[in-house]
Amino acid sequence: MSPFAALATTITLEDIKNKAVGDFKPHETAVLALSADCQSQGYQAICLPLTTTKWQERWKNMCIVPSVEDAANEAAIAADKEAEAWRKSPSFLLDEVTITRLDEAEFVLAMASEWLRLDSDDDWVRHDSGIALRQEVAYASYLNVHTIILPPPRNRSQVASYARVINECLKSIPYMQFSVRLPIYDPAVFQSKEPSSPTSHGDHGWSGASSPPHAPTTPPKLATPGSFPPGSLRSTKAPEGELNATWEMWDIIRNVCDYNIRLTLALDLTPPLPANAGVLGRWAAEPVTHIFLPASAFIANVKGYPHRPTFILSGVRCGLHAQGGESAYAQYVKYLEKSSPSVQAMKTEGTVENFGQGYQDYLQNPLQPLMDNLQSITYQTFEQDPVKYHNYEEAIYRALVDLPDSDRIVICVAGAGRGPLVARSLKAVRRSNRQAFIYALEKNPTAWITLQERKAKDWGSPVELVFGDMRHVELPEKVDILVSELLGSFGDNELSPECLDGAMRFLKPDGISIPSSYTAYLAPLSSSKLYNAARESRELKGVETPYVVMFQNVNLLSGDGGGVGGRCGPKIQECWDFVHPRGDVAVDDRGLPFTNSHNVRAARLCFHIPHAGVMHGFAGYFEAVLYGHVGLSIHPQRKDYISKDMLSWFPLFFPLREPLYLPSNSEVQVSLWRLTNDRQVWYEWFAESFLPVFNSPSPVDQSEDVLGPDGSFFASTSTHVAVPSPLIDAIDAFPLTPRSVGPRTGAESARSASGVVKIGQTALHNPGGRSSWIGL
Amino acid sequence: MSPFAALATTITLEDIKNKAVGDFKPHETAVLALSADCQSQGYQAICLPLTTTKWQERWKNMCIVPSVEDAANEAAIAADKEAEAWRKSPSFLLDEVTITRLDEAEFVLAMASEWLRLDSDDDWVRHDSGIALRQEVAYASYLNVHTIILPPPRNRSQVASYARVINECLKSIPYMQFSVRLPIYDPAVFQSKEPSSPTSHGDHGWSGASSPPHAPTTPPKLATPGSFPPGSLRSTKAPEGELNATWEMWDIIRNVCDYNIRLTLALDLTPPLPANAGVLGRWAAEPVTHIFLPASAFIANVKGYPHRPTFILSGVRCGLHAQGGESAYAQYVKYLEKSSPSVQAMKTEGTVENFGQGYQDYLQNPLQPLMDNLQSITYQTFEQDPVKYHNYEEAIYRALVDLPDSDRIVICVAGAGRGPLVARSLKAVRRSNRQAFIYALEKNPTAWITLQERKAKDWGSPVELVFGDMRHVELPEKVDILVSELLGSFGDNELSPECLDGAMRFLKPDGISIPSSYTAYLAPLSSSKLYNAARESRELKGVETPYVVMFQNVNLLSGDGGGVGGRCGPKIQECWDFVHPRGDVAVDDRGLPFTNSHNVRAARLCFHIPHAGVMHGFAGYFEAVLYGHVGLSIHPQRKDYISKDMLSWFPLFFPLREPLYLPSNSEVQVSLWRLTNDRQVWYEWFAESFLPVFNSPSPVDQSEDVLGPDGSFFASTSTHVAVPSPLIDAIDAFPLTPRSVGPRTGAESARSASGVVKIGQTALHNPGGRSSWIGL
Repeated sequence: MSPFAALATTITLEDIKNKAVGDFKPHETAVLALSADCQSQGYQAICLPLTTTKWQERWKNMCIVPSVEDAANEAAIAADKEAEAWRKSPSFLLDEVTITRLDEAEFVLAMASEWLRLDSDDDWVRHDSGIALRQEVAYASYLNVHTIILPPPRNRSQVASYARVINECLKSIPYMQFSVRLPIYDPAVFQSKEPSSPTSHGDHGWSGASSPPHAPTTPPKLATPGSFPPGSLRSTKAPEGELNATWEMWDIIRNVCDYNIRLTLALDLTPPLPANAGVLGRWAAEPVTHIFLPASAFIANVKGYPHRPTFILSGVRCGLHAQGGESAYAQYVKYLEKSSPSVQAMKTEGTVENFGQGYQDYLQNPLQPLMDNLQSITYQTFEQDPVKYHNYEEAIYRALVDLPDSDRIVICVAGAGRGPLVARSLKAVRRSNRQAFIYALEKNPTAWITLQERKAKDWGSPVELVFGDMRHVELPEKVDILVSELLGSFGDNELSPECLDGAMRFLKPDGISIPSSYTAYLAPLSSSKLYNAARESRELKGVETPYVVMFQNVNLLSGDGGGVGGRCGPKIQECWDFVHPRGDVAVDDRGLPFTNSHNVRAARLCFHIPHAGVMHGFAGYFEAVLYGHVGLSIHPQRKDYISKDMLSWFPLFFPLREPLYLPSNSEVQVSLWRLTNDRQVWYEWFAESFLPVFNSPSPVDQSEDVLGPDGSFFASTSTHVAVPSPLIDAIDAFPLTPRSVGPRTGAESARSASGVVKIGQTALHNPGGRSSWIGL
Repeated sequence: MSPFAALATTITLEDIKNKAVGDFKPHETAVLALSADCQSQGYQAICLPLTTTKWQERWKNMCIVPSVEDAANEAAIAADKEAEAWRKSPSFLLDEVTITRLDEAEFVLAMASEWLRLDSDDDWVRHDSGIALRQEVAYASYLNVHTIILPPPRNRSQVASYARVINECLKSIPYMQFSVRLPIYDPAVFQSKEPSSPTSHGDHGWSGASSPPHAPTTPPKLATPGSFPPGSLRSTKAPEGELNATWEMWDIIRNVCDYNIRLTLALDLTPPLPANAGVLGRWAAEPVTHIFLPASAFIANVKGYPHRPTFILSGVRCGLHAQGGESAYAQYVKYLEKSSPSVQAMKTEGTVENFGQGYQDYLQNPLQPLMDNLQSITYQTFEQDPVKYHNYEEAIYRALVDLPDSDRIVICVAGAGRGPLVARSLKAVRRSNRQAFIYALEKNPTAWITLQERKAKDWGSPVELVFGDMRHVELPEKVDILVSELLGSFGDNELSPECLDGAMRFLKPDGISIPSSYTAYLAPLSSSKLYNAARESRELKGVETPYVVMFQNVNLLSGDGGGVGGRCGPKIQECWDFVHPRGDVAVDDRGLPFTNSHNVRAARLCFHIPHAGVMHGFAGYFEAVLYGHVGLSIHPQRKDYISKDMLSWFPLFFPLREPLYLPSNSEVQVSLWRLTNDRQVWYEWFAESFLPVFNSPSPVDQSEDVLGPDGSFFASTSTHVAVPSPLIDAIDAFPLTPRSVGPRTGAESARSASGVVKIGQTALHNPGGRSSWIGL
């Protein structure tokens, strides 16, 4: 496979007509000739309209009546009958399609008729556009076309009908990819409604406004500079709502299509782009498989798009940039891709991007090193990490230096594995010029063999091996420094706290634990790819479980800055931490805690969501303090300062069972618990969404039920309480949550206060720890 | 089973103590003696605290430390160790429980310790309350107690933790009912936070504010008149948010417990009630199994509560109403129930309530009379309806009278069944003194036998029987009046439009169809019972399908009045209608339509939701015009005017796969489609929710990503478009939907406009008609 994204070029009806007048070899056609030309120029595919203007004319004549006055005449009746005959068995005439042969279709991305109005406000136009699309899709499928590009949705209020038809097509055609062409930003969606003529075909009994679409010859409306007032071009600010509109339509479409994996996005970069990176970032979490790049607006930021989409160039034959010739556009796209930071990083050895190739957005079950004994190959993979061990050595060195000089400093490496931390400890001892003795403790009987070999070969007498579980074995003496590496992607998720509770017995009262603490971090995340992957995995396993994932097609939904009401924390928030040693746990005679209650944790976090998005789960990270200022971090905003290029941990992904829609400027309140019983540790999670509200008008509701539909108990006109009953009426329009409210006496204060209103919630995930870490 | 709701009375610890000093028979105990007393007074159960003050004291001493200063002393360390020992194996001492024997527990509704703070802001209090509750539940289960009443949640911000513990209990104990005690309205939820002393037991490393609960001796806080400012008692208006708060807590609890059917509500009517019927109506859609009625606030509206809950009376021995004695309360509750309108209706023959007994909230699959030939028993059931046939006769009579006099008026009864409409037609003919001839058309070969019998016995020569499907057979002549009854609960859902398309061939150009039209109506609905029933049914069938249901435990969520922005329609909205005959359908030589496209329908409805609720689906109704002003209706607000006591149709229920949370004053936009292909007709449905927004402040978002966590394409600082690119920034806080916006030039107008913001959506239901009406 080519390391680059595929390139396609657009063929117009004009191109085909021009080519058709030339000479062909026997059995060749204009489309085949164009296809051969394009392939010789280095394009992997051609993007082609599936139908001709003949089809458009026939459809229009059948399905659109010019005006109301003419609706009753002979021609209209004939058109009606013709339309009914077509609806009964929809099919093309030969001159209505651009391709007819399998070989013509081979390299084709077929564009369905752009003038179809699947989201028209007119019921008949919508209905007949749906029949036409199904006909086109069926024809493309007949020719074995693998991808069809759908006309863009243009009407926010009818997008559910658009989506419903696409879902119908997806269900009826088994293999084809359906790609929704969509501009990132399209002010046309907000233009005034379609003009009111021509009208649709007769009044067939549908109620509702019958404002039909533009004459079907009008191409999709896209923003042009002319649609803004003169002089305001660069200062125009698009309101959040308009920036959301096209994404919101996409969200409805993929939701109505139940996240079908054959439904993808063809992002159209033809209209002007908004400059707001936060608004654009959301597209990174969507299945973008095609990008339309017009030669007329060649842009400078086509770098390292993570999805490897096909770039569809258009207008490359118009001579707009004559200097480089037709192929300059394709070369430039390849150059930009090659020089992008993420592609560069992927090609550079030692980076996470290079190390993690093939693991992007791939769900892995977290390790359970306490329950399972790791394989040698697993140890070897993690031992490749140069940063982690470097930082460990540095932490041990500094701890040694800080200790009062002594003729015998005792170190214990708890969980020595195949020995890398023992080796680093020895190096740190040498560097510090201290006299130190090392106990290497390991419970994995197979790694134990490797440790014996290393002691015999490399380490000798300064190291003593001790076999056993750190929660049960005894050491002959107390130690000054306890070194361990039991951390998971979320810090505590491989049961480091529970294991170290056992090992803390070894530590002298003023001893040092490396790590000295670790913190778990969380952020809400959107990713249709991860949602689908988790859904699939769930069907197999029937559990809700966190996964280890190298994130790629994801978008963190949260923002910094506290949100509209200043109630929210930062983009990525701290859940809890664990500190070692901790002196406040009651322990028994052997120094072990009575219960694991002190390792239970609960976090309630509030995130600000600046731009509308769909939450599919949470990203989990950790940061550990090894000693002093030396640490390990996979926190996205801090990892490069603390442990750049560390490879050992991908983040954790906590999936949601059902996506949760979050509007712009909303807040999401996440509850996360770390729970434990005698044998297991697990997480449960739950979220509620809120929207800030302001000084709202307070209409008195005139619609109170006098009697419920079922004549039920409470729905009577009077509910007088006999004895101590102050009667209370509801009049305020907007509720406030307790968080923002002190004691109040009446409605007055509510009206001037600003607060939040609850708008949604998730299920409780992983209740009872159906997915858990076992081994206590 | 008793026709009345069960009654229980509350036994206090004081009652037990007082009884304990009396004389017992051998093997009797104070609780057994009290239980016997109560049963002899007509109570079916006693409501009893499960634990004594001894338990409360021990728990408090172990788990709550008096103050920070003392935390380090000897006693605190001892308490800590004692607590850990308890956490390891939680158990009671003998004097800490009120019952110990199976026979004592037999009639007991056990109240878990009310002072437990499962939703404390203090992590340790919450944790230890959870252990205590699990211990109490396990003990109650040991004694075979069937119902445990849980302490009320009191802290909105920690209710998810409360809910999580309840879910844990539900999962660990297989049979017990768990009933959450909850006041309908509790201003205490909004009081200032718990006082800051005493503190919890030591700092165990949890972050977050450590404000512990009231001293556990404090009973649950309930509203008293004293909590309102003097003089403002009756004029105080509770804001919507406060009225929602207790319901919102319940909603989180049942949602976190995944609508477990063993989780129920014990509504506490002790605090003052709000007078707003709309706010109260929501409780009718919830599984209320117990109602606490304090003697001190005996109320006058305990009538016909649909759930038949157990009424738990308290304080009946306090002598507050000395005149009637202890049993007067119970008698009064029974009297009120007996005299309630809904119980009265249920006892009156001829009412829907009487007819439908046993069918309340029971999901039935709608009939498919076109595909299935009905059984004689089904015909007989529907023929019992006196109103329907009366109205048909009246409609036929009026049509006959309105027709110009003629020596031969021809009537066709299309779908004659066992003949009731033929008989009514003959009666109408007799009443009108017209000369009429009747064709009785039927395709069901078994009903056909009955028709032959009736013709031979009752009807004679004015009636001619024709066997066959009205879409295919021919009649020897055209008719003046076409009578049919092919209506379903939603009007068109038994394919009346498709069948009548065929029968319209028989009608003279100026002929009359009875019915002349029918309209489908929809309203959003909440009902945890129907949600659970549909979910269960779905697991069996794997389809999303509308059901026929006699609604009882339901609450229509919508309100009249247009909503905050005036954008919404009424409480129950019209979807579409069908009119017969209609002249605008193109037909073939035989008079049959070419396709069924003209029977496709689409509705987009916008409902105002005055009070927060959870939408579980939609209620569907129909209304038909038979002729002139004679009709049939099951529209809740109109049925009593049009066809009171008509029995033949229960409403339709369109279920949602997942509940959709709707805040107060939100709007829900419903898309409903009636779809068709060659063989089937089906509905699909989808909904989006919105919240109105007003003049909001527009904070400039300072939190834009400079680089996404994955270094993705769009997350770069500049996204300059080379050629025609007006740069656009997002600054507005609140989006507006297209509906409320014309063309705009910038943010200025957005800020002063009022609009709606999208907050949620459902899946597309029944895509592709997996559940459909077959037989075209």
